[in-house]
Amino acid sequence: MHLFKSLSLATAAVCGLTVANAAEISSPNGEIIVNFSLESGVPTYHVDYKGKPIILPSTLGLELVGTTNLMDGFELIGENSSTQDETWEPVWGENSQIRNHYNEYLAHLKQPATERLMDIRFRVYDDGVGFRYEFPMQDKLVYFVVKEEHSQFAMPGDMTAWWIAGDYDTQEYAYTESRLSEIRGLMEKSIIDNLSQTTFSPTGVQTSLQLKTDDGIYLNLHEAALVDYSCMHLNLDDKNMVFESWLTPDAMGNKGHLQCPAKSPWRTMIISDDARDMLSSNLILNLNEPCAYEDTSWIKPVKYVGVWWEMIAGPSQWSYTWDYPSVKLDTIDYAQCKPHSRHGANNENVKKYIDFAAEHGFDQVLVEGWNIGWEDWSGNWKDYVFDFVTPYPDFDIDMLNKYANDRGVKIMMHHETSGSARNYERHMAVAYDLMDKYGYNAVKSGYVGNILPRGEHHYGQWMNNHYLYAVTEAAKHHIMVNGHEAVRPTGLCRTYPNLIGNESACGTEYESFGGNKPSHTTVLPFTRLQGGPMDYTPGIFVMDLNEFNPENHSHVNSTLARQLALYVTMYSPLQMAADTPEHYGRYMDAFQFIKDVPVDWSESHYLEAEPGRYITVARKDKNSDSWFVGNTSSEHGHKSNLTLSFLDPDRKYIATIYADAKDAHYKDNPQAYTITTKEVTSKSSLSLNAAPGGGYAISIVPKP
Amino acid sequence: MHLFKSLSLATAAVCGLTVANAAEISSPNGEIIVNFSLESGVPTYHVDYKGKPIILPSTLGLELVGTTNLMDGFELIGENSSTQDETWEPVWGENSQIRNHYNEYLAHLKQPATERLMDIRFRVYDDGVGFRYEFPMQDKLVYFVVKEEHSQFAMPGDMTAWWIAGDYDTQEYAYTESRLSEIRGLMEKSIIDNLSQTTFSPTGVQTSLQLKTDDGIYLNLHEAALVDYSCMHLNLDDKNMVFESWLTPDAMGNKGHLQCPAKSPWRTMIISDDARDMLSSNLILNLNEPCAYEDTSWIKPVKYVGVWWEMIAGPSQWSYTWDYPSVKLDTIDYAQCKPHSRHGANNENVKKYIDFAAEHGFDQVLVEGWNIGWEDWSGNWKDYVFDFVTPYPDFDIDMLNKYANDRGVKIMMHHETSGSARNYERHMAVAYDLMDKYGYNAVKSGYVGNILPRGEHHYGQWMNNHYLYAVTEAAKHHIMVNGHEAVRPTGLCRTYPNLIGNESACGTEYESFGGNKPSHTTVLPFTRLQGGPMDYTPGIFVMDLNEFNPENHSHVNSTLARQLALYVTMYSPLQMAADTPEHYGRYMDAFQFIKDVPVDWSESHYLEAEPGRYITVARKDKNSDSWFVGNTSSEHGHKSNLTLSFLDPDRKYIATIYADAKDAHYKDNPQAYTITTKEVTSKSSLSLNAAPGGGYAISIVPKP
Repeated sequence: MHLFKSLSLATAAVCGLTVANAAEISSPNGEIIVNFSLESGVPTYHVDYKGKPIILPSTLGLELVGTTNLMDGFELIGENSSTQDETWEPVWGENSQIRNHYNEYLAHLKQPATERLMDIRFRVYDDGVGFRYEFPMQDKLVYFVVKEEHSQFAMPGDMTAWWIAGDYDTQEYAYTESRLSEIRGLMEKSIIDNLSQTTFSPTGVQTSLQLKTDDGIYLNLHEAALVDYSCMHLNLDDKNMVFESWLTPDAMGNKGHLQCPAKSPWRTMIISDDARDMLSSNLILNLNEPCAYEDTSWIKPVKYVGVWWEMIAGPSQWSYTWDYPSVKLDTIDYAQCKPHSRHGANNENVKKYIDFAAEHGFDQVLVEGWNIGWEDWSGNWKDYVFDFVTPYPDFDIDMLNKYANDRGVKIMMHHETSGSARNYERHMAVAYDLMDKYGYNAVKSGYVGNILPRGEHHYGQWMNNHYLYAVTEAAKHHIMVNGHEAVRPTGLCRTYPNLIGNESACGTEYESFGGNKPSHTTVLPFTRLQGGPMDYTPGIFVMDLNEFNPENHSHVNSTLARQLALYVTMYSPLQMAADTPEHYGRYMDAFQFIKDVPVDWSESHYLEAEPGRYITVARKDKNSDSWFVGNTSSEHGHKSNLTLSFLDPDRKYIATIYADAKDAHYKDNPQAYTITTKEVTSKSSLSLNAAPGGGYAISIVPKP
Repeated sequence: MHLFKSLSLATAAVCGLTVANAAEISSPNGEIIVNFSLESGVPTYHVDYKGKPIILPSTLGLELVGTTNLMDGFELIGENSSTQDETWEPVWGENSQIRNHYNEYLAHLKQPATERLMDIRFRVYDDGVGFRYEFPMQDKLVYFVVKEEHSQFAMPGDMTAWWIAGDYDTQEYAYTESRLSEIRGLMEKSIIDNLSQTTFSPTGVQTSLQLKTDDGIYLNLHEAALVDYSCMHLNLDDKNMVFESWLTPDAMGNKGHLQCPAKSPWRTMIISDDARDMLSSNLILNLNEPCAYEDTSWIKPVKYVGVWWEMIAGPSQWSYTWDYPSVKLDTIDYAQCKPHSRHGANNENVKKYIDFAAEHGFDQVLVEGWNIGWEDWSGNWKDYVFDFVTPYPDFDIDMLNKYANDRGVKIMMHHETSGSARNYERHMAVAYDLMDKYGYNAVKSGYVGNILPRGEHHYGQWMNNHYLYAVTEAAKHHIMVNGHEAVRPTGLCRTYPNLIGNESACGTEYESFGGNKPSHTTVLPFTRLQGGPMDYTPGIFVMDLNEFNPENHSHVNSTLARQLALYVTMYSPLQMAADTPEHYGRYMDAFQFIKDVPVDWSESHYLEAEPGRYITVARKDKNSDSWFVGNTSSEHGHKSNLTLSFLDPDRKYIATIYADAKDAHYKDNPQAYTITTKEVTSKSSLSLNAAPGGGYAISIVPKP
């Protein structure tokens, strides 16, 4: 198989340019071609897909602090190429096997004026391209500080984009669909308030960024294996339609502190003319390192309920008392405080959730607000905000864990850090020890508010180091981590599969903060989910939140049937049934789907997809021969005509279809659903209708 | 005893000023009078000593970020006064008992425009004054950010000062003696290079600052109990001769993040017309909280030798190999490296020091450079710089600890952090566990270079929190801490007596970096030592460092006799004999004094003192009836006529006098000393002569 052509002489001769060196790297199927060259000493690349440009000529390099940049003046002093074709098995995932097949090209560059070396490595897959910078051990470049990375992604036109504002501290913005040329005008409107937020440019956006050309080519820009580096945003030059990397700064304004040998994360481009390929791509996972743990038997997908939605949307509180304007953990005696009686994490309430979980086969019960400190936890940039080990007086940790374990259920730990990273690291060992003692094996962590050390941002190198430290330290205790407000995932769950979830986008909680756009869940799998699973916390059955809490005037912008579908469309090994036992009790027939749906899969087939419009996916249970189909749609609804050709042709199945009723609508009739069953085979077709803001969910179980 | 007079009506009537409230607080002996008042709502104080002003009217208050300042608009809404007279026993110290006797005045202030409360507390002792700000729990002031503290100290004239440049990151400057009016002109010259340094003002100086009026009143300005606050410098308005507090900023430029209830450290003024009182004052210790530990039996003063001076001044290295431009601890295999053969912390060398320590009765052997990472440890702002647990291949930690313990000696642990505080905290628990395992009970820690988190300074609130965290975590393991490059001490060793030492000034190592001024050790006890003991590492016997290391052209600016005296004049419960066994072997008769001198005392009597000129002190061993006298002098030398009236009048003693020979001189004849013995009683007088840069040491042992 032809891997790459060294075009040094040919190009120089043909074009008459001062091209010193050039190479062409092809995908295994030949549909994607990357051209790399040095243009007057500047590293430059472009990408063609099926013979048409998808990335126009773009330059690469890094601007450094206090020394010559690594931007130009390079010579090519060596080249390597290779092919990889292997299949690996994730600990959990959308598929039980993943093929990793690419052609690789490695350019060894030297900057003669400084005698420094820099390599650029490309991997070209059938579904896209990754490249990264590598800095070998050398005498002339030892420690260096990055002022900015200047990796360009020149767009082939004024594409359509599904974007959120670039921000160093939050990813919790609603997606805007617009032309690139419209980003500047729509930026201000796209930014909503967050306790911690730092936008930086009127044309700055976040990755993963989903794009589409007018002639139907889809392009996704993101990064893979973000380790010991700051998180990348993209800033658009909207005259020339060129995106350029824009890293997250540290407290000094620097954007990276590197020691050779070092490497950047991969910069990724998923490319296809079929939107479904964006969703089935494993490019990001493939560009990450293999699993770092020898034993992964302790890592288990989790389906859970929790004492959470009643605080987010309902009348319950995380806190215990309103006695004081603020609390100091080392002096306060909660036993002497007057409880305000709205504390959600109390013994009786937690037992109710445990009973519910046990009755309906859930693995775990998340309890937020169990530990002291919630009276003034947020918005105060407080250092010693939690100790992660001391329960409130009405949370009997010993009794409750025994109560849960006796019923085959685990309590899920909650470590809100309030952004106070040093404080968390100081208590991490005893916090994990406490979990060991009581048999917790999963923790939801949170980073609400501005970061301490002050001046650091959520997505800078310092905090990225912290998030990974929390995961690898947890692994020593056989603990799984679900990090909220942490940096967006970049496929690190391949290497560290105890990172079973992240938030890193507007989750279901925003349904209580004004409501997500009805199309939100048709965009997330194209963007946020590219890097790893999201703890989206679906399963809300009571859409009018005023029913739940007189002070809540928000509305869940989804039908009930679509809430079921999200367990299939929003892939995650960690799925919450987020509503309350009482609310589920009102729709137990629909709740059956949440009970039945698995959280780990052997196969996934994206049947229909268009960002912002609809996604339909069929997945096969990893532990049985059952299939599950989910569809989510936008405010326009969606009509599907599905062929069930993914089913085993030799078997018959019973399909149970949870669909929007004819008059269902996310706004005023969300709980109108139908449940029908029918026998199906691989030859069956299904005509299905998703209401505005609706969807459908199907379980397909083999006939015995 | 009269404590304070409320002068509200009287002053208003007499002066015709808009004085709302005023109070007068007297020292127990009546010689110091503090006047506090609100001048047009601004907190104001002045101090008289023996009827003359020593602090002119000075204002107090804090400037806040983003809200009304706490500077003016105050009303006095209450007052409290009290007297304290108690005696307490330090775990170790210059005296076995300390009297804490003061009159206290507490002003309750309210800022009606904001409804906020602030208290100012004064304590007036016979030897000086302390005041601090207190912020009670309240609804209108909960969390606040300090932009600057504006505590004034208005000088009564153009005093003489012994000062070093104000700096957020180093205290390692030579003292300058000058008029206040000369500081600006001498500032630049006073600043020498340091790996981490951040000066801030041409008239900014550090505390403890020693001052003297033309009519012989001594004043020392410092702070006590620096906890959860940033370290104070003093900036001089040299038109009006008014010092004002200047706090150390954080990475954002803010100078303090406080949560009510909160309090500032004490701002201290030691006052006397006898310089010896500056040195015998216990004001700083008294203003600190009592010991926080119930059990202190594990805290023991330490006399030690170490593998250190041969790296500082000699040819040995901390590092092991020169194979690589830098090292990464998680990938390097030292067993595969080529050793450069100058690694000081090797088994044979360490055994030599252990043998020497055992033979001569030292408690411990410090070994620096024992752990991997020293190849690129300094100046690189490196995050993961040490792991604190992995020895170099030629340091057999198991064997060496056994070898030492078998000989009744402990190895002293060394934790250089290179300023990477997060990294140290991450490894602290395992590092202390390792010490537990091998029986180490003391650690010398270091913070060379710029701080990580980047942007933080050595003396900011963030790092002050860290240093104390290291001490209190160590206490859980019964480990004593000797912190180098940490913030200057402020008497916290009373509360946390396992903080047995700090550096926080130019120590003996500077004799190898160009040489300390001959007068250096006549200033340090007036300044640096006010807050707590210094690990000065005296005892250098070979002054011409070129003899030791062909590349070293520095010279130790002291006679050998003075090196002995420093064990008495530089009070510390932790004393090193810093030179090598070989060098001591050349002067074993003089070395006897270092073997004999204790490191803990029941009584101390300062016999003579003048900053920059001479200090003579007599101390009684805590564990015997022996006395030890030390004198250090400047380049001018010093003549003493001592009366030994401190001795027990009923006993006879043998005095062994280690003195400069007649022709001794720190520059060209430092090793000329005499050792004489004579019988003495409490009625004896001794005429003694210290050479230029010299001194003398005397042991006075009861006759059996």
